[in-house]
Amino acid sequence: MRIPQAIKRLIEAFEKLPGIGPKTAQRLTFYLLHVPQGQLEGFAEALASLKKNTVLCSVCKNVGETDPCSVCANSARDHSTIMVVEQPLDLLALERTGKYHGVYHVLHGAINPMDNIGPDEIFIGKLIERTRELSESTPNIEIILATNPTMEGEATAMYIKKQLQELENGHWKLEISRLGVGLPTGADLEYADETTLMRSIEGRRIF
Amino acid sequence: MRIPQAIKRLIEAFEKLPGIGPKTAQRLTFYLLHVPQGQLEGFAEALASLKKNTVLCSVCKNVGETDPCSVCANSARDHSTIMVVEQPLDLLALERTGKYHGVYHVLHGAINPMDNIGPDEIFIGKLIERTRELSESTPNIEIILATNPTMEGEATAMYIKKQLQELENGHWKLEISRLGVGLPTGADLEYADETTLMRSIEGRRIF
Repeated sequence: MRIPQAIKRLIEAFEKLPGIGPKTAQRLTFYLLHVPQGQLEGFAEALASLKKNTVLCSVCKNVGETDPCSVCANSARDHSTIMVVEQPLDLLALERTGKYHGVYHVLHGAINPMDNIGPDEIFIGKLIERTRELSESTPNIEIILATNPTMEGEATAMYIKKQLQELENGHWKLEISRLGVGLPTGADLEYADETTLMRSIEGRRIF
Repeated sequence: MRIPQAIKRLIEAFEKLPGIGPKTAQRLTFYLLHVPQGQLEGFAEALASLKKNTVLCSVCKNVGETDPCSVCANSARDHSTIMVVEQPLDLLALERTGKYHGVYHVLHGAINPMDNIGPDEIFIGKLIERTRELSESTPNIEIILATNPTMEGEATAMYIKKQLQELENGHWKLEISRLGVGLPTGADLEYADETTLMRSIEGRRIF
């Protein structure tokens, strides 16, 4: 008894997705055998048109339906403050707070030598160029480095900071910041890891 | 900033799959944005043709490319022994042992009143009918009930046993068995649950 070709192909397609192993791929595929053909075709159509109906914003590299994206096109936002994030999902998470009124720059990754991802594989050059261009018309720029507080995110932030500082020439002011680190809301000190605790002490504020 | 329609649609399609929550659906969708269009279309094609290129075997209800399936069509197998399983994946797992030479019957589920799945929603009637027909030509039949050792699987096995026993009429012999239960290979007694231990004692063998 061998697995039918049509089933094998779908299992293999699922297995290529991150975090989905052979067992899950099998389970998902056999589950889909019980689903109406219409739903399968809707799913297929959504996959095939995913990239056709989305564009990368030429300004911030966010994924959107228009170019420039709705954030970059919004003149009510503060275009002199750029929040640098790793992924479009990070941008969406920040937007959900409703508290940030600047614009974004999406890197689409972080520097990670283990995975052969260097500065040229993500949109760092684009950010430097964008900042340089912006500095010609804007005397005060703030860049918030909102890459993840992981080894890769920190390395990326450090690299970008160095590159940005080379741009400075006295004719404009550049402020580079990094998102605050420390205990997340609702955390329990007892279970916090040492690095988080250490950073929360370093980052203590007058109360 | 709202999520583009094309992305939203794919997230929703992933969310409908079992064991995939909103976060995983988002992560998978944004991952696929970085995948070549060709791979996306291959995935879409595999989905759309999944059910077109597979058939349910009219004898055993297994999923295959031919009807009857390759097991039912194989005259070298023992057609008087039928192993009853819940899902096609169970059949594949049993085939991997290479030690079973009978045929199968796939129920496509188990009786589960909580999910409104009664005996008529799965292929139990088909199994009873198949056994009755087989009894006309075969004097000795063995049915191995290989549903899962869960509450639903046990209830299904009990129900099938009762239905099968009503078929017996003295002109043929029916043997109904259930897969052995007990400690799995490599298990540690210390961590085994009470039910498994209890059953392993009940099912002890002369050594």
